Amino acid sequence: MAEYFQPLTAEHLRILIAIVGEEHISDSAADLDQHSRDQSFHTPHRPAVVVWPGDTSEISALLRYANQHRIPLTAWGAGSSLEGNPIPIHGGIVLDMQRMNEILEIRDLDFQVDVQAGVLYKDMNQALGRHGLFFAPDPGANASIGGMIANNAAGTRTPRYGATKDNVLRLEVVLASGEIIHTGTRSSKTSSGYDLLHLFVGSEGSLGVITQATLRLAPLPEKFSAAVATFSSTEDAIQAVTAISGSGITPAALEFLGPNLVKVLNTTGEFSLPDGPTLLLEFHSTTEAGLEEELSEIENLCVAEGCTTFRPGMGRAARNDLWRVRHQAYETIVRANPGRAFLVGDVAVAVSDYPRLVAVASQEMNKNNLHGYLIGHAGDGNLHPTIPYIPDDDESYAIAAAINGAIVEAAISMGGTATGEHGIGIGKRKFMTLEHGNSQKVMLSIKKALDPHGILNPGKFFIDELK
Amino acid sequence: MAEYFQPLTAEHLRILIAIVGEEHISDSAADLDQHSRDQSFHTPHRPAVVVWPGDTSEISALLRYANQHRIPLTAWGAGSSLEGNPIPIHGGIVLDMQRMNEILEIRDLDFQVDVQAGVLYKDMNQALGRHGLFFAPDPGANASIGGMIANNAAGTRTPRYGATKDNVLRLEVVLASGEIIHTGTRSSKTSSGYDLLHLFVGSEGSLGVITQATLRLAPLPEKFSAAVATFSSTEDAIQAVTAISGSGITPAALEFLGPNLVKVLNTTGEFSLPDGPTLLLEFHSTTEAGLEEELSEIENLCVAEGCTTFRPGMGRAARNDLWRVRHQAYETIVRANPGRAFLVGDVAVAVSDYPRLVAVASQEMNKNNLHGYLIGHAGDGNLHPTIPYIPDDDESYAIAAAINGAIVEAAISMGGTATGEHGIGIGKRKFMTLEHGNSQKVMLSIKKALDPHGILNPGKFFIDELK
Repeated sequence: MAEYFQPLTAEHLRILIAIVGEEHISDSAADLDQHSRDQSFHTPHRPAVVVWPGDTSEISALLRYANQHRIPLTAWGAGSSLEGNPIPIHGGIVLDMQRMNEILEIRDLDFQVDVQAGVLYKDMNQALGRHGLFFAPDPGANASIGGMIANNAAGTRTPRYGATKDNVLRLEVVLASGEIIHTGTRSSKTSSGYDLLHLFVGSEGSLGVITQATLRLAPLPEKFSAAVATFSSTEDAIQAVTAISGSGITPAALEFLGPNLVKVLNTTGEFSLPDGPTLLLEFHSTTEAGLEEELSEIENLCVAEGCTTFRPGMGRAARNDLWRVRHQAYETIVRANPGRAFLVGDVAVAVSDYPRLVAVASQEMNKNNLHGYLIGHAGDGNLHPTIPYIPDDDESYAIAAAINGAIVEAAISMGGTATGEHGIGIGKRKFMTLEHGNSQKVMLSIKKALDPHGILNPGKFFIDELK
Repeated sequence: MAEYFQPLTAEHLRILIAIVGEEHISDSAADLDQHSRDQSFHTPHRPAVVVWPGDTSEISALLRYANQHRIPLTAWGAGSSLEGNPIPIHGGIVLDMQRMNEILEIRDLDFQVDVQAGVLYKDMNQALGRHGLFFAPDPGANASIGGMIANNAAGTRTPRYGATKDNVLRLEVVLASGEIIHTGTRSSKTSSGYDLLHLFVGSEGSLGVITQATLRLAPLPEKFSAAVATFSSTEDAIQAVTAISGSGITPAALEFLGPNLVKVLNTTGEFSLPDGPTLLLEFHSTTEAGLEEELSEIENLCVAEGCTTFRPGMGRAARNDLWRVRHQAYETIVRANPGRAFLVGDVAVAVSDYPRLVAVASQEMNKNNLHGYLIGHAGDGNLHPTIPYIPDDDESYAIAAAINGAIVEAAISMGGTATGEHGIGIGKRKFMTLEHGNSQKVMLSIKKALDPHGILNPGKFFIDELK
């Protein structure tokens, strides 16, 4: 397949320079390296050149040219993805969206914002906060909005607010041909035509380059409550998750920490969590009375499921304490395990299958005598098994990858998915057939219809897209 | 285009009989008539034959045969759609899903149900009610679930629970080729591959026939409150809608009734609503305290926007009273206007544009001296202008259609949509280019990739799909 694409020539470079200007293109080793890797464990690969376009019409010109000359082109947001999604494995052009970082219009009354795709999540939410609004899907990292959309990123707030796909109303997209299209509306409700919007969300830059978006915002919550609930068994903890979901009370976040993780967090001396499988809960409301009643109902539900310690707290401070625990989890794991790297899995199942999924993940690690960790967005059945391996040791990595593979296969066999929020990228391509069967052929036919020469982020999604 | 399709021959009929069995096929005048019209004002058109398949494999065989022989095939749910969506305007086969009406599995713990596509909405919710669950999108009519999905139906409960598209997790679909695919997962969260699920939702049977679905359910609300808020001007009423949305309190329903409609409802003697533009509000909660606090906050917000009468009520009875008003609206309109038919529009915009949209709709009707009505799901910017015309009077119908067209164009010019929940069907085809511009070409390329011979519900969506 490498032969399929044209190597970049001096003539190609001359044209690219003409499109974006000399100061917005680079093939320096530093720039190529920086665009060769995301935050994942996947092998880096350099592009031939990086361009920083300034507007949609430049992107249109770049795509038209790349398409005519069969040059691979991969869009790049903040490089914070976790599955190798933007690694340019066939070289070519990386299109870095960094310069297109404007917040175009905030429409307070409609809880909507128009942004360019290169704007960063945290920067945007800071600006929106001044209007009492925020974009709820929280990927953790300071991702770009275009990257979040391309990946359908999610995070801890999904139970109440949904994933990125639930919070995008309208997109401007440049197709492989260079044509600029708009899809979606400012109306939150529409039944007009095929839902192209959701086809581009999560397509990881393989169907078009997202250049602008209208996002649905939420009012900043006025009242918070939070709780740490400890259980004597993982089964009990997950039963409580199911009971909470069934209560009709929708947590803003409902996170699960496995017992190993709680232990390692306590070793830092910063936290004093009761030992055992733990749920972190957060609730948002507009009314104080409702919140107190909710929290006490949640406590009853947890206790009924065998909760051994329930530490409730009202207000923003309690909430912030909670998130200090959660946000430091990965860093604490890494610090506590010198000489180890971690393969971070990302599977999701229906909540009632979560205990079985957690059991499979534990068993797979135990069976291989690996001391890994379990953390997940339990409220929506999303688990991130965190599997240790020795860096630069192929055998050790192969074991971690095999464990991850077994967990993914278990999730799919339960009717779940190979990826809850990190996307297919490089690491999940091999599970596409298992998860999607012959509907993968439909995906491939859409890929061919929209990107006939396969120039857009090639080598992702499909193992053999150009065959 | 009629010439493009093969007329149905005796040989074709023989094969269709072999597939579904003689007792499940009909070309009787009564059956053809029954499948020639939906609940809309669109001109009826008979199919050549109606078949009632018993399972997915029969549907697969039917599609494979129809595809090979270029016979148009239109799936049929309950015939309750409002834009001519399933009218078989090119004849051929109507595939009535009535026999495939099984509830396959209710998974209480996950709030999910697997159903065959022919199951009816109200029947299903009755069965789910025994498990304390319900499917929230309420189309009003007793639609089939397959029809609701094909149409992305919605209704009064969208502000809190979303439209059908927000509540479908997995689909079984038979493609034009006869191939059976599955898309989506039991996990509520996934970033795996292209989102084919949402491509089929709202595609009105033009990309495949939906045969089975996994739906996301909600727990039946425990506590209800409701209110009728009357304003002295439509502007004030809509300002209140915006204020309510901004409060962070999410109504289960937030309906707008124009002053004409309130007047006609009062003439029945059944209701005694204060005259004036009116909002009907419903709230669901798990806690009584929260609900009372919410209702009083909502009252304050409404009063601040000029609400002249606010009638709150707690509990299920208050809620049911409210919906008696809403559900009898259309019937009351029809009864109060003998000798008139009504063209029911269906546009949606961002909430802040709703006052302008309502103003355009009023002006267009006044300008033509037509005494129409305005009713809508204000909470999500969806308006149903109800425009009178004289049945079988072409000139009168043309005026109503022109008014509807002007309202649609206004909605699109505000960044809204030609259809909030009724779909494109026949009536909205002419607005596709205005709303979607060149992204319609992408839709068409997907149509060609999935249904190369254009046999599936031909003549919908695109004015010239086969050119």
